[in-house]
Amino acid sequence: MPERVAVVGFGVTRFAARHPDATYFELAFDATKEALSDAGLTPNDIDAVVYGVYNDLFERQFMQDVLIHDYLGLYGKPGVRVTTGGSTGGYAFREAYLTVASGLHDIVLCIGAEKCADCFDYVVGKPTPEVVKAIAYSADMTYEFPSGMYAASSYALLARAHMDKYGTTEEQAAKVSVKNHKNAMLNPIAQSPMELTVEEVMKSRMIAYPFKMLDCCLYTEGAAALVLATEKKAKKITDNPVWVKGVGAANDKAFTGFRSTSDKLGKYGDIADLRSHYAAAEAAYRMAGLTDPIRQLDLAEIHDAFSFTELQAYEAMRFCPPGGAGKFIDEGIPEREGELPCTVSGGLIGCGHAVGATGIMQTGEVVMQLREEAGKKQVPIKRGNGLVHSIGGPGSCYCTVAVLGKDKEKERK
Amino acid sequence: MPERVAVVGFGVTRFAARHPDATYFELAFDATKEALSDAGLTPNDIDAVVYGVYNDLFERQFMQDVLIHDYLGLYGKPGVRVTTGGSTGGYAFREAYLTVASGLHDIVLCIGAEKCADCFDYVVGKPTPEVVKAIAYSADMTYEFPSGMYAASSYALLARAHMDKYGTTEEQAAKVSVKNHKNAMLNPIAQSPMELTVEEVMKSRMIAYPFKMLDCCLYTEGAAALVLATEKKAKKITDNPVWVKGVGAANDKAFTGFRSTSDKLGKYGDIADLRSHYAAAEAAYRMAGLTDPIRQLDLAEIHDAFSFTELQAYEAMRFCPPGGAGKFIDEGIPEREGELPCTVSGGLIGCGHAVGATGIMQTGEVVMQLREEAGKKQVPIKRGNGLVHSIGGPGSCYCTVAVLGKDKEKERK
Repeated sequence: MPERVAVVGFGVTRFAARHPDATYFELAFDATKEALSDAGLTPNDIDAVVYGVYNDLFERQFMQDVLIHDYLGLYGKPGVRVTTGGSTGGYAFREAYLTVASGLHDIVLCIGAEKCADCFDYVVGKPTPEVVKAIAYSADMTYEFPSGMYAASSYALLARAHMDKYGTTEEQAAKVSVKNHKNAMLNPIAQSPMELTVEEVMKSRMIAYPFKMLDCCLYTEGAAALVLATEKKAKKITDNPVWVKGVGAANDKAFTGFRSTSDKLGKYGDIADLRSHYAAAEAAYRMAGLTDPIRQLDLAEIHDAFSFTELQAYEAMRFCPPGGAGKFIDEGIPEREGELPCTVSGGLIGCGHAVGATGIMQTGEVVMQLREEAGKKQVPIKRGNGLVHSIGGPGSCYCTVAVLGKDKEKERK
Repeated sequence: MPERVAVVGFGVTRFAARHPDATYFELAFDATKEALSDAGLTPNDIDAVVYGVYNDLFERQFMQDVLIHDYLGLYGKPGVRVTTGGSTGGYAFREAYLTVASGLHDIVLCIGAEKCADCFDYVVGKPTPEVVKAIAYSADMTYEFPSGMYAASSYALLARAHMDKYGTTEEQAAKVSVKNHKNAMLNPIAQSPMELTVEEVMKSRMIAYPFKMLDCCLYTEGAAALVLATEKKAKKITDNPVWVKGVGAANDKAFTGFRSTSDKLGKYGDIADLRSHYAAAEAAYRMAGLTDPIRQLDLAEIHDAFSFTELQAYEAMRFCPPGGAGKFIDEGIPEREGELPCTVSGGLIGCGHAVGATGIMQTGEVVMQLREEAGKKQVPIKRGNGLVHSIGGPGSCYCTVAVLGKDKEKERK
């Protein structure tokens, strides 16, 4: 059995379209300083670091991680970089968990940071070829890229499949956008807090059917950091630890999977149902001993790269049966006031998507909520458990799920 | 204490300047098939995967890892990509170790793969701007790149500092090149097996003083894979397990470190002595309980990106005192027939540097040697321990060290 691991500190910068005055290592510094301060620790207390950094081309700088390591003065300590597309933050958190759970290191820092605005041409207000290229390289360059399958268009196909199979509507997806933009209004770090109507989302500019502009997440700069510790250390550091109860991860094939042997054999089911999401949730629930997530979780942070993606995640996380996501949002269950508030940070749509930092920011959101220190965003904590879902890659092929929780008897206030 | 972890399988492709008939995922497939076959396992037995892939730009394809995952049909299993420059393979192995040691997964595959030749212009026989750019992005783009500090030139400065401080000579470094090219002659997968003289190395084309062409490692394509398992599983899988006795890792600042607070305070010592290498070795030795490496190791695989780098590593690995590396090679200690054979695979200079795969290939070399199944390359195994050293990044700032070993009493033949 793995050693018990707790999250004992969290820090995050503002998520913004641009941080004109800060480099990525300065952003990482700010988030780390806040996380260490939250834990009451100094850089000397850190035994190892896991970095989540997505895109080398955004800054035309590989190995941003080691430059951050340098900037933080963490000489002589291990520091490893994880990169798995949009799920980079989620996988970095998992590696940080494993590093502590292994018994090799007691206190591990997990940092995600991203700068991308320097790739943009702010004069014309549109992404330049450089940033388009930087993101397009994430598609399968042999089959998908030549077919025009960039991020939005490949996720749009998954959404279309869901509409066809289950009758999910664009209006139901728009409700996710309305909810997450609204949730962002209570989040002081959010990039895009807005009061919207379903109609406004429906009327926004078409990007890739069925996605309109307001169904899509944002290009964002920012950083987030978490401090993880062994049970022994955690109990010395804080009287309000949040435990990592379950971590699950699963990769599926790239979207088209043209080269997959199992596809040739007809084993792949249906792109309406995201297999890696189901598998990652199952693994996390098994480890955490959760059997009825909708009744055992207080909140869930979902990786809402697109509005439809959050709907599909409701099903994969077993908040509702396959095909039940439209009804789930219609009934208001994932609203702030609903039975299972989802993406109360505002998510990628409302708070922003600073890729390597996103999963870490969303994990930190669940940590602060479970500590009941989430400020105006706070939702009621009755069950003591929260979930973080993180995805990435062509056709959403990477997925990580983490279940965090309090020891109910001992630690609930 | 971490759970005991063993290496139970190894596979590697040919290391070659070009694999014109194979994609990187086909190379990864070949290495994985061999590693699984070596362990007597099937893909279904794998619980999780760690990928080492260095450069997204070589193939203009991000997330090569998930395309490999797809190609191998490992749906529903976790797969994370690690990337830390030249030490990518070394850090990937460390993450695979942590994944098993955590108790979360029993059998973990560690795969490294690299293609780069498509970046080259084979008509003129020189790297095209694309590959130069792809590698140059690994330098610090703010300070180092504009100063012309690419891989060879920054490592050359470290070598010059060593020459100045300790009187190390170009001829002593050339002996490393002669040794490793010669070692490669016994390695069937090697890219550059050659019988050379010190004079020939000295006369080869100047690259960045003191490095001549034959002091430098190669651009290489290839893949390597290892299977790691818990003690319980390992004992079922094989009667010849090789244990991971120690893993150490440490990052230093980027070479110039202009932005480092501690440098401004004058804390940085001397670039002749590679701090991260010393720190990584110390951590690995502490964990493995090694106190006298030169008498407790049977062999060491050193990351000889450049001939001088291997010399500097002898000191950091404590095979000799600081400044003693020149004498160490003059006395023939690291030769195949010497007291501590170093880099018997041929290393990056003789076997090749398929970046993400290199550390995994060198770890596999130590595994096969300790199993006494290294074929013509076999060196005597009397003490039952071997070391793997892996480095990367601007100014060699990343370093990992692993100590592998047999249980002497029980498992030595």
